[in-house]
Amino acid sequence: MESRERLTEVVEAEGHLIDSQLLNVIFDTVIKGSSSFEVLRFKIGRTNEEPSFISMRITGPDEPRLQRVLEELVTLGCRIASGHNAQVVQADKEGCAPSDFYSTTNDRTFVRHRGRWIEVEQQRMDSVIVIEGNRAFCRKLRDVRMGDAVVCGVEGIRVAPEFRERDRLGFAFMSNEISSERRVEAGVARIAEMMRDVKQSGGRIAVVAGPVVIHTGGATYFGDLISAGYVDVLLAGNALAVHDIENALFGTSLGVDETGKAIEGGHRHHMRAINVIRRVGGLRQAVEEGVLKAGVMYECIRHGVEFVLAGSIRDDGPLPETMMDLVEAQDRYAAALDGVRLVLVLSTMLHGIGVGNMLPSWVRMVCVDINPAVVTKLADRGSSQTIGVVTDVGLFLHQLHRRLVGQTDVINQRQRG
Amino acid sequence: MESRERLTEVVEAEGHLIDSQLLNVIFDTVIKGSSSFEVLRFKIGRTNEEPSFISMRITGPDEPRLQRVLEELVTLGCRIASGHNAQVVQADKEGCAPSDFYSTTNDRTFVRHRGRWIEVEQQRMDSVIVIEGNRAFCRKLRDVRMGDAVVCGVEGIRVAPEFRERDRLGFAFMSNEISSERRVEAGVARIAEMMRDVKQSGGRIAVVAGPVVIHTGGATYFGDLISAGYVDVLLAGNALAVHDIENALFGTSLGVDETGKAIEGGHRHHMRAINVIRRVGGLRQAVEEGVLKAGVMYECIRHGVEFVLAGSIRDDGPLPETMMDLVEAQDRYAAALDGVRLVLVLSTMLHGIGVGNMLPSWVRMVCVDINPAVVTKLADRGSSQTIGVVTDVGLFLHQLHRRLVGQTDVINQRQRG
Amino acid sequence: MESRERLTEVVEAEGHLIDSQLLNVIFDTVIKGSSSFEVLRFKIGRTNEEPSFISMRITGPDEPRLQRVLEELVTLGCRIASGHNAQVVQADKEGCAPSDFYSTTNDRTFVRHRGRWIEVEQQRMDSVIVIEGNRAFCRKLRDVRMGDAVVCGVEGIRVAPEFRERDRLGFAFMSNEISSERRVEAGVARIAEMMRDVKQSGGRIAVVAGPVVIHTGGATYFGDLISAGYVDVLLAGNALAVHDIENALFGTSLGVDETGKAIEGGHRHHMRAINVIRRVGGLRQAVEEGVLKAGVMYECIRHGVEFVLAGSIRDDGPLPETMMDLVEAQDRYAAALDGVRLVLVLSTMLHGIGVGNMLPSWVRMVCVDINPAVVTKLADRGSSQTIGVVTDVGLFLHQLHRRLVGQTDVINQRQRG
Amino acid sequence: MESRERLTEVVEAEGHLIDSQLLNVIFDTVIKGSSSFEVLRFKIGRTNEEPSFISMRITGPDEPRLQRVLEELVTLGCRIASGHNAQVVQADKEGCAPSDFYSTTNDRTFVRHRGRWIEVEQQRMDSVIVIEGNRAFCRKLRDVRMGDAVVCGVEGIRVAPEFRERDRLGFAFMSNEISSERRVEAGVARIAEMMRDVKQSGGRIAVVAGPVVIHTGGATYFGDLISAGYVDVLLAGNALAVHDIENALFGTSLGVDETGKAIEGGHRHHMRAINVIRRVGGLRQAVEEGVLKAGVMYECIRHGVEFVLAGSIRDDGPLPETMMDLVEAQDRYAAALDGVRLVLVLSTMLHGIGVGNMLPSWVRMVCVDINPAVVTKLADRGSSQTIGVVTDVGLFLHQLHRRLVGQTDVINQRQRG
Repeated sequence: MESRERLTEVVEAEGHLIDSQLLNVIFDTVIKGSSSFEVLRFKIGRTNEEPSFISMRITGPDEPRLQRVLEELVTLGCRIASGHNAQVVQADKEGCAPSDFYSTTNDRTFVRHRGRWIEVEQQRMDSVIVIEGNRAFCRKLRDVRMGDAVVCGVEGIRVAPEFRERDRLGFAFMSNEISSERRVEAGVARIAEMMRDVKQSGGRIAVVAGPVVIHTGGATYFGDLISAGYVDVLLAGNALAVHDIENALFGTSLGVDETGKAIEGGHRHHMRAINVIRRVGGLRQAVEEGVLKAGVMYECIRHGVEFVLAGSIRDDGPLPETMMDLVEAQDRYAAALDGVRLVLVLSTMLHGIGVGNMLPSWVRMVCVDINPAVVTKLADRGSSQTIGVVTDVGLFLHQLHRRLVGQTDVINQRQRG
Repeated sequence: MESRERLTEVVEAEGHLIDSQLLNVIFDTVIKGSSSFEVLRFKIGRTNEEPSFISMRITGPDEPRLQRVLEELVTLGCRIASGHNAQVVQADKEGCAPSDFYSTTNDRTFVRHRGRWIEVEQQRMDSVIVIEGNRAFCRKLRDVRMGDAVVCGVEGIRVAPEFRERDRLGFAFMSNEISSERRVEAGVARIAEMMRDVKQSGGRIAVVAGPVVIHTGGATYFGDLISAGYVDVLLAGNALAVHDIENALFGTSLGVDETGKAIEGGHRHHMRAINVIRRVGGLRQAVEEGVLKAGVMYECIRHGVEFVLAGSIRDDGPLPETMMDLVEAQDRYAAALDGVRLVLVLSTMLHGIGVGNMLPSWVRMVCVDINPAVVTKLADRGSSQTIGVVTDVGLFLHQLHRRLVGQTDVINQRQRG
Repeated sequence: MESRERLTEVVEAEGHLIDSQLLNVIFDTVIKGSSSFEVLRFKIGRTNEEPSFISMRITGPDEPRLQRVLEELVTLGCRIASGHNAQVVQADKEGCAPSDFYSTTNDRTFVRHRGRWIEVEQQRMDSVIVIEGNRAFCRKLRDVRMGDAVVCGVEGIRVAPEFRERDRLGFAFMSNEISSERRVEAGVARIAEMMRDVKQSGGRIAVVAGPVVIHTGGATYFGDLISAGYVDVLLAGNALAVHDIENALFGTSLGVDETGKAIEGGHRHHMRAINVIRRVGGLRQAVEEGVLKAGVMYECIRHGVEFVLAGSIRDDGPLPETMMDLVEAQDRYAAALDGVRLVLVLSTMLHGIGVGNMLPSWVRMVCVDINPAVVTKLADRGSSQTIGVVTDVGLFLHQLHRRLVGQTDVINQRQRG
Repeated sequence: MESRERLTEVVEAEGHLIDSQLLNVIFDTVIKGSSSFEVLRFKIGRTNEEPSFISMRITGPDEPRLQRVLEELVTLGCRIASGHNAQVVQADKEGCAPSDFYSTTNDRTFVRHRGRWIEVEQQRMDSVIVIEGNRAFCRKLRDVRMGDAVVCGVEGIRVAPEFRERDRLGFAFMSNEISSERRVEAGVARIAEMMRDVKQSGGRIAVVAGPVVIHTGGATYFGDLISAGYVDVLLAGNALAVHDIENALFGTSLGVDETGKAIEGGHRHHMRAINVIRRVGGLRQAVEEGVLKAGVMYECIRHGVEFVLAGSIRDDGPLPETMMDLVEAQDRYAAALDGVRLVLVLSTMLHGIGVGNMLPSWVRMVCVDINPAVVTKLADRGSSQTIGVVTDVGLFLHQLHRRLVGQTDVINQRQRG
């Protein structure tokens, strides 16, 4: 590791450096890190198709600050030109990493190991990289075992940031600022198209949904989308399921009926709903015994759509299916997201951030919320793949339903009850 | 005015004192005003139909504070039991009132003059009452003329607060808190019903609209509603018209096209649009000469729907029709609102507050905005008649269109171009 | 239970029926429930001090609807005039209640058992009431054991709604609508006064805090308040502690330093912070070993202030102290809240709602958030005891600090490190 | 103009093309315009100080689309390489421009006229450029006179976009996303520093303020800042002045007193306040006659600080000083902004947008609002010079006061009453 003693380092990057604004961010990072750069070689793509290449010498004021800059440059897509292997250190404590462990981004990552670049599997952000034989894996801190070979430092690591290509990207249109002053219908049309594309090419779609979906009258539309085969996984909390059941059993959501009228005593409907389900043993039994005959959870169970309900500190009940052990719930969420290509987050910051943390950057997320701050926050968490739509989630589902189900296309000819 | 020397006064009120929460507010007002009350007589309505009656003695700590409490009680619907005529003082200065002038609420008001209760005409809030012969009128401060007989103090004034009847009121359902976690579709259905009712009974509907109506893709839906006869008056600013024309001429709104894509150079479209209209002399000429062939303003002109565009400090241009003299604009707004029974405020706090200030309390306002703070603020300005809907205004108009125009009913068989 | 067959029932209520708006709500409830009322007797309090009394006959259209109305009237403070004992049914299944179990509000509740009214202990909302000997307890659904004597129906139940007295209530000033257009300094002064009062009278204060407290620069102010003895319990999630430690160890919060500059690589600081704490075994060990020397968690540990960190689906790490089993976390939260008289909720809707669900209505909650929708939502959840302040939480803590700590008063002369 | 017939055009640009993200935006613009580019020459700055240079051939699908792309490139800082003079066309109608007039941005602009590049004076966005002799001026559409020499097309125009230098720019720290989850105190410190710098170097500062400044308790702090010489111009509407006077005369703002308590009858205080001022003839007379003795307007008048009050459709009264003719008000605003180097916009979207439209890009704006959507909107209107702070404006002013006035520095030793 003699390079660590030098106050200068040569890094390289190639790709759509200008389109992707990468070059700008790279320069910024160097300057903000009290360091300087000298461009050694730069080749600009002459047309939109051609990639660019840069090689530059970074000089830092001292060793720690140079290291921090290099660490950041690596996550941006630069690689140390030295050509060394990644440094690997054995974990010396259960559930902990060595002090200078490399903490992952959600972008596709390669590690130079025994002279070869290997792609890291199970990519996700905020994890450590563990080498096993000739393979490398993302692992959560708490899952690191004593003796695991953990990647440290920044040498021998290469990150390939997800690049939003300009003209091909159907979603460029929404990469403008997040705003409620936008025509949502155009956005819905593109999202519907994406969902069809994903399904037609055999991909999986996950929906992460909060109880507002039910409160705003989206239950029927959402149920139909499930029934039509557009949802492969439902990730939610206890509240979505509780108010969905309340709606199915009593026609209210948090005590408000479908005409918007607050029903007297209605705020206790959700407790009665929970009790009904607990008495029969769970949601599946409720469907089997004919107690639960409509709604989001009903459609999931009827069509074999996987669902995971994660508990939270505010939960009433909970329903038997709600997982109150969150280590287990996180693992179940992550497993359910395996192979998913598109995620819709409907009015739930909590579960949306949770899911965003688990996904690699090449899985697209669409976040729908009436509060622009929520959409901004979800889009900000290092998830450049996120598209935000600021709108009423009930009306959004109505629009999506019109485009996907109102027409006669049912993707999977699933058997109906 | 000997009663003014006393530190105690008897007031009376009758009506749905409990349903309307009036009694509670009356008691609160007394206590907060460092005064006390003694109930002399109270008769509660035995059923929902029967009115209640209360007579109470108010005792204040000193004359000014008692006066302030009485003043407030009068606006709440109490009357001084003394039976005196209202005090009338001649205005001694143009555009000004005597110091202790009675400042109106927007509730129906009666003045005791020459021993008879007369109803005040042109009721609106924050104005003075001027007596002319046996009639009384609300007048804006600036319109008071020297010598006008201005009502002062609180005696001989009786206010009849608008009472929201419980079971008959179709809108009770939305009188719950303002929230984005509501099923908007139910609200739209009721608003559509109200609009139909108003039109069928020969009433007038005004729409107050901001440019977000255009940005969110509502232009076509709104245009169709105008075309179908559901809009009698359009009150807006320069920006609504500018972006509507931009949309009609260039297919963009603030440079964003209907698919949501920002068009290069598009942010200058609105200046070109203004120039086009200025060159032909105005909106009406643009329609006549076939320059303007679609959109909200086009439909207004084609169907003879009155519109008033009020200028603001942020206006570009402006369009020839935009009134940059706001004294005139306020007068034109107020005149256009005469006889209106329902007002829809679509995404414009500025014009919505302006209109709210001009309306008596018995005209219903429906405020639609994606920002709950705007809806709350409009509903808070002493306008208990306001119903708030927190949602995306483009999708709201789509829903309203589905219910009113998507079906075949066109209220007025206006001639189509 | 022969009364159940009748379509009419006599109910009574007494207290500040008008001040508290109870009478209005009672009438509304009857009408909305398609029922009617006849006032049999009404005695109004003649002055502000005197209570009122009402006795009324309720008539319903059918048995189920009458029952629903009665159920609601009971939670509002009416009692069935019949004078029967509460109906008690044995639970026939673990973690479940009989179908018509009485679901509690957070108001003080009495049950008529063996001819005597007994007060229910451990009052909280959305729970069942279990009778044990001559005592009655609130119990969560999941904690009901087979054979428990569960209160069902509505007879023999009396609820005493928390009444906000008008003139004595220090908080009346904020009972206005929730708005960002308010002078926060006045509110802070009152909250500071309340905190002093609670401490001087030996009461306990809990703070529920989200990570925004750290992001907005509140860590030092909050730490000082803990140090000065104004916090007895801290209830939070993993994120508050993680960013507090990140701030203490690296001077950043989510990678942003105290001057507001985003530090390169800083977004990984929080993972390093978690790893540091995990390596030493936990927060307490980190303080003992001198690894953690400042911040909110440090002050809690140093001053023996109890804290409970509840896990969530979005948590990284987690820290060893974070409870990922939420059944346990809820129980620990509830236990920690025992005897608390004032709760400050700082920028956390999730934990704020969780805590609100656990508290009886006579514990005051102050909710501070920059988003009015969050404040409204917390205040709406049946927690009439909640006061909302819409403001920047960092500046709020600065103001509170100025009033409580900037001056020299340290409530408890706790020993310093 | 033979170049117009070609479907290809060579453009050049130089400067900090990468740092400023200009190159990326240029490429994007070409692609989105259905055109293509070929880089002819590119020289990258080797270090942070060195500028870059690019020359590229743009090929469009047809003439109009190529023109639109070129038009946009010019506003981004590219110039047509041909070296022709700008095209000048005589205006043929009062208040109108020729159809293909060049619509300005707020960036510094040069026009090639008679073979020389001349800088455009009175730079502002959305205006036309008029040539007079050897000078060029921005002129509003409505101020164009028949016969004026108006610049059309895109040749011979060069724009120099304001470049935010990375390391020197004190405000880089806030160029992160707009968020309420930020430490505001750091921002205030920098703003205070900037204000001191501007004043010490003889610059002028304008404040644009909404009535929320008064409602949130900022009147005293703001008054002190005026008194200490930190405000050279106050731009506001009628409401700011009305509530400031209401506060000075009655101690309330919209009827709410300084402890946050709603005063009975207080909502009419603002009408009384207006009447008082109208009776004495205006604000200046009110100060002279000792009627108005405190507050923001008082301090402005006492210290000779210029103020302009622009009317709006929602105004009550108005005050005699409020300009209800908005053409005049816009002109007065623009004149008052002449030579201003820093503008603070405090809680007013309407006036903030109005002012933003009038400023060249090199005047810095700081926008403070508790609603992130307002801050985003102000920052989005082509005003890259805008810095947003999401916080409580009353507390913000308190903080600013602490840093600028709480200490003993008074910039101008203005005479105190």
